[in-house]
Amino acid sequence: MRIMSTSHAANPDRLLPADPGTRDIARRLLASVEDLPIISPHGHLDPTMFTTNDPFPNPTQLLISPDHYLCRVLRSAGYEMSQLGVGGHECDPREAWRIFCSNWGLYAGTATGYWVEQEFEHVFGINPDRISGKNADDLYDELSEVLKRPDFRPRALAEEFNLEVLATTDDPLDDLAPHKELRDDASFTTRMLPTFRPDAYTKMYKPEFAANVEKLIAVAGDGKTGYEGYLQALRNRRQYFIEAGATSSDHGTHNADTTPLDADEAQRLLDKGLKGEATFEEALAFEANMTYRFAEMAQDDGLVMTLHPGVYRNHSESAFAKYGADTGHDIPFKMEYTNGLRPLLSAFGENKDFNFVIFTIDETTYSREIAPLAGYYPAVYAGAPWWFIDEIDAMNRFRQYTTGTTGFSRYSGFIDDTRAYCSIPARHNTSRRVEANYLARLVAEHRLTEDRAAEIIVDLIDASPRRVFKL
Amino acid sequence: MRIMSTSHAANPDRLLPADPGTRDIARRLLASVEDLPIISPHGHLDPTMFTTNDPFPNPTQLLISPDHYLCRVLRSAGYEMSQLGVGGHECDPREAWRIFCSNWGLYAGTATGYWVEQEFEHVFGINPDRISGKNADDLYDELSEVLKRPDFRPRALAEEFNLEVLATTDDPLDDLAPHKELRDDASFTTRMLPTFRPDAYTKMYKPEFAANVEKLIAVAGDGKTGYEGYLQALRNRRQYFIEAGATSSDHGTHNADTTPLDADEAQRLLDKGLKGEATFEEALAFEANMTYRFAEMAQDDGLVMTLHPGVYRNHSESAFAKYGADTGHDIPFKMEYTNGLRPLLSAFGENKDFNFVIFTIDETTYSREIAPLAGYYPAVYAGAPWWFIDEIDAMNRFRQYTTGTTGFSRYSGFIDDTRAYCSIPARHNTSRRVEANYLARLVAEHRLTEDRAAEIIVDLIDASPRRVFKL
Amino acid sequence: MRIMSTSHAANPDRLLPADPGTRDIARRLLASVEDLPIISPHGHLDPTMFTTNDPFPNPTQLLISPDHYLCRVLRSAGYEMSQLGVGGHECDPREAWRIFCSNWGLYAGTATGYWVEQEFEHVFGINPDRISGKNADDLYDELSEVLKRPDFRPRALAEEFNLEVLATTDDPLDDLAPHKELRDDASFTTRMLPTFRPDAYTKMYKPEFAANVEKLIAVAGDGKTGYEGYLQALRNRRQYFIEAGATSSDHGTHNADTTPLDADEAQRLLDKGLKGEATFEEALAFEANMTYRFAEMAQDDGLVMTLHPGVYRNHSESAFAKYGADTGHDIPFKMEYTNGLRPLLSAFGENKDFNFVIFTIDETTYSREIAPLAGYYPAVYAGAPWWFIDEIDAMNRFRQYTTGTTGFSRYSGFIDDTRAYCSIPARHNTSRRVEANYLARLVAEHRLTEDRAAEIIVDLIDASPRRVFKL
Repeated sequence: MRIMSTSHAANPDRLLPADPGTRDIARRLLASVEDLPIISPHGHLDPTMFTTNDPFPNPTQLLISPDHYLCRVLRSAGYEMSQLGVGGHECDPREAWRIFCSNWGLYAGTATGYWVEQEFEHVFGINPDRISGKNADDLYDELSEVLKRPDFRPRALAEEFNLEVLATTDDPLDDLAPHKELRDDASFTTRMLPTFRPDAYTKMYKPEFAANVEKLIAVAGDGKTGYEGYLQALRNRRQYFIEAGATSSDHGTHNADTTPLDADEAQRLLDKGLKGEATFEEALAFEANMTYRFAEMAQDDGLVMTLHPGVYRNHSESAFAKYGADTGHDIPFKMEYTNGLRPLLSAFGENKDFNFVIFTIDETTYSREIAPLAGYYPAVYAGAPWWFIDEIDAMNRFRQYTTGTTGFSRYSGFIDDTRAYCSIPARHNTSRRVEANYLARLVAEHRLTEDRAAEIIVDLIDASPRRVFKL
Repeated sequence: MRIMSTSHAANPDRLLPADPGTRDIARRLLASVEDLPIISPHGHLDPTMFTTNDPFPNPTQLLISPDHYLCRVLRSAGYEMSQLGVGGHECDPREAWRIFCSNWGLYAGTATGYWVEQEFEHVFGINPDRISGKNADDLYDELSEVLKRPDFRPRALAEEFNLEVLATTDDPLDDLAPHKELRDDASFTTRMLPTFRPDAYTKMYKPEFAANVEKLIAVAGDGKTGYEGYLQALRNRRQYFIEAGATSSDHGTHNADTTPLDADEAQRLLDKGLKGEATFEEALAFEANMTYRFAEMAQDDGLVMTLHPGVYRNHSESAFAKYGADTGHDIPFKMEYTNGLRPLLSAFGENKDFNFVIFTIDETTYSREIAPLAGYYPAVYAGAPWWFIDEIDAMNRFRQYTTGTTGFSRYSGFIDDTRAYCSIPARHNTSRRVEANYLARLVAEHRLTEDRAAEIIVDLIDASPRRVFKL
Repeated sequence: MRIMSTSHAANPDRLLPADPGTRDIARRLLASVEDLPIISPHGHLDPTMFTTNDPFPNPTQLLISPDHYLCRVLRSAGYEMSQLGVGGHECDPREAWRIFCSNWGLYAGTATGYWVEQEFEHVFGINPDRISGKNADDLYDELSEVLKRPDFRPRALAEEFNLEVLATTDDPLDDLAPHKELRDDASFTTRMLPTFRPDAYTKMYKPEFAANVEKLIAVAGDGKTGYEGYLQALRNRRQYFIEAGATSSDHGTHNADTTPLDADEAQRLLDKGLKGEATFEEALAFEANMTYRFAEMAQDDGLVMTLHPGVYRNHSESAFAKYGADTGHDIPFKMEYTNGLRPLLSAFGENKDFNFVIFTIDETTYSREIAPLAGYYPAVYAGAPWWFIDEIDAMNRFRQYTTGTTGFSRYSGFIDDTRAYCSIPARHNTSRRVEANYLARLVAEHRLTEDRAAEIIVDLIDASPRRVFKL
């Protein structure tokens, strides 16, 4: 660890329980995992940052523009996404930085605010209590200086962060050249994994669907056409990913329906989709079929399958018209797994060699659906709390709502799912503290011995992600 | 504060955390807000109580009959609403009082019970531990004496309560004479605000709809007819309310749908509704359109818009047949905001001068929908926990489920929403204690400095409601 | 209590709050109820175990095979239900025991694990910290010896457990001979109650429906036929149950719909159902009608009615094909009560002599629907947390989500709902600790005096189940 300031963000007891007896237990549990390497089996970094290893251009492009958690808060305060450089918009980075610093108070109590403080404290060695409108320019200059240093280049940070495994999320037609280059580069010790993410090829309700699918079939369909060629191409590209090191495929579906279609019906819907004539209901039926088909493919090729449903993408029509997709206004909605997943699980859920990780953004499903499913089906793992619910209290709730039914063995391990590179250590450290906090309570309530808790926390942090993601 | 008894209800640490270290922090935070004036931007008192300033007739009419929280509990124990004077039914007030006191044990652990204790302790200076069937007559007599005193008349209590702002909820055709009278009366220092509540003019499924709408158009439609006259009349009455001091309109819709209709379709549904021929689905479609239209009007006239959906009104057919509407059997149901609000928010949610406060009675929406919406849209504020979920533990949950995503800046400020005048100080004090409790935990967990927490709590209690309700 | 080991499972403070001040209060509250007799008004034991009073054959058949909570965990780890003797499958009991012991780590943090530890500690006097693959054979042998002792036969354990009331769940055509025998046996002091559970006669979507109903009408229909004979037969069998000591009927419906049908429509659906031609929707409509009709019958015969909706039975098609029904893969789904129960409650909910206990497995309904319904309707009681949500943290949540609205008086009392005989003391003890924990917090927060809390906990544990189940 670098030199630290004496801010509250450096307090070694942060996030641990206030009760002194329980806190002592938590401290001991945390000590056994705090310095373990980081395993990040699902995330959204651009792998070329490690091939080029260019210095980060400025504080704004490193810390603000790519972090939609952080930008949404400023949007809610009335700032424009364009002022923050979101979605590829040009902005004055210093001006964006000033906006951020002047509105620092908005982040009090948020997970994002906590992570930023941790980054300042533990990555940059700057006291986060200094963040304010008044200090914006000074901080910008100081950080700019830091970013010029060789030990703040992407690769040096990966080493500093103790980043053992790092997954990216990739288009099925991506050539994965950076992954291959990094794998062959003995000087880079982080294991980089591509992840097969075929959403752009399964969602007929997206305008780019037809062009994507046509290209996919043409490039990888082995000369076959239609639905048959489509499936073949997906199979081939999965294989390509596996050869480049992938261990999982990821699926950001609208809902959790997995009803399969017979080949004729799938062909009929695909035809409509390619002509842009599918209704939203038809598009969802096709997507559900494909979720089923990807599970089917996984029976053969062994890729771990992760599911991320339940988010209304591009919620604001006016913002979409102005800034395009993925600019901060994705909103969760009510999710249903028990009925939706039944076809897939009835067919493949009893296969213990198939690893199927279910994520949710609707925490009402924790005790009602996720834990009972993960607590019965050998294939099912409860995904770590994700996105809006990866904040500290919500992570605690995940434990409280699932563990009584499933124990600790059906957990995916933590995923950071981030585009914000420097937040990775803070996110993983938060997760370790939350686990220590929860386990310490079980020990304090005599539900677990401390010896057993000490074994469990190491398993959760280190062994679970390796096991579940087949690393 | 008046003379206090030594009951547990007077304990200065009530509702604060049990952990000694955290409690000390909470005490200090509470001290900075406990004596701030009360700002009540949404409630249901009758403003004429302040123009006439008559003494309250007896303990039952002050404390029991108007308080549906309190009466429901007695109904669940088998008493008839008519025995308690609910819904305008005549009852023997002393007999109702005896019923209440004899069943005091039922209130243990409830928010209502806590408020009643606080009222006894801090408003009437009577030890709440004395409440029992045995003491019912004595307490009735003591309270009756108290109510004759000049310092227990409505205006004197307003001063005693430190009531700076008090909103009522009013029919669009109300002449608001009491509000005007009070505004012009320099001796009354509470700022009284009317609130524009047009529900009775938008719900075709209510029997009085046609008569209401016809009167509205005739009185305020500027001679226009049909849907055009209807919209014009609503616009005019909003203006009338604004001139009388209103800053917000309130909408108790069935669900959160906001799909707009074109003028022809709206006219067609309005015609059916006026003839009593609209189906429930058509009535809801019209209501959804009107929610959208009120937001549209707010873009012009600047009224804050508050939404209170998700309650099944008059759930018991047998009770409705016996006692009529609004007699205690309104039951919440599952709510959905992400899809429902999308039309309204796509059109107006990015306007930072439009303040749109979303209340929920379904707390499953806190982390899934309310916090993400309030954490992105500049227009959206998360409404304080309401009705069944304004009890103490539920208020704590609101903080825990929303703050990690939205921070503190997107909060409406506390609203008491009450018909029970003497419970107002207890409700606001409870809210202040809950905020102190939550913030103290963040400080104890080193997620916030105590200095910052001290600023935040003042902002939450004092500045938020002023800012959000444009006071 | 038998001799205890010194494992953490014997700690007298287990499950009590960690904060020392609150824990002291909780200890005192617990002391007043820990040794009260067990009242178990809903469960699934086979009553013949008490008429034959045979020794339990081996540890596996006593502790593993009948406990679907325990077997699901092993299934999730990839073991076959057949290896564990589930669903009547033959298994090598020692081999099953080895599987269980070797996988003991999977139970850390689960309710099931906690109960097993308590059974070892307090029923068998064996230190649960010894459970491991290494010790499996030793433990099997030791337990086998224990099970041969006369004081470990079913009746002796009933006395040891202080089992005052024990209900079973029975088929309407059951002759209830064991119940009658036990009632007439002065040497057996536990009061055995049959429970009328007519699910097998109301679910058209089950293959055995037609045969069941035809037999029912023939046997008990008083010579009437069709829907009329069907209703008459059910009325007659309820009477038969009442004469054998039943005080309640139990209903495991798919959802909470209670819309009644007129006699013609009911007859039409019944005819289709008997021919196996009813759609799933028609079957649900018939089931909803029957839920209404059972409530109607209860107005006459006074049986308490308990409702257990919201579980998708036999979720895995492949497991169902392999092992048949009820083999561990029942999964909860989203539940709705406010609309569904309205017909039943509008007709019968205001009858305070009708006791209607609503259970839920979807805890999102606690504050939104269950508490508001139980806090208004004189007939409605909030059922204790059930199945997946009867684990420790979930039981705490039940209190936190319902008590603020309903207080303590609208609670069903704890039910163990179990097939695992030796877990009964642990389950009831857990419930007593959870109540002490919750009440201690209210006292520590000055929301309740300790004297009042001490009265409440006795009422919850002892008086509530007697009152609600009319014992």
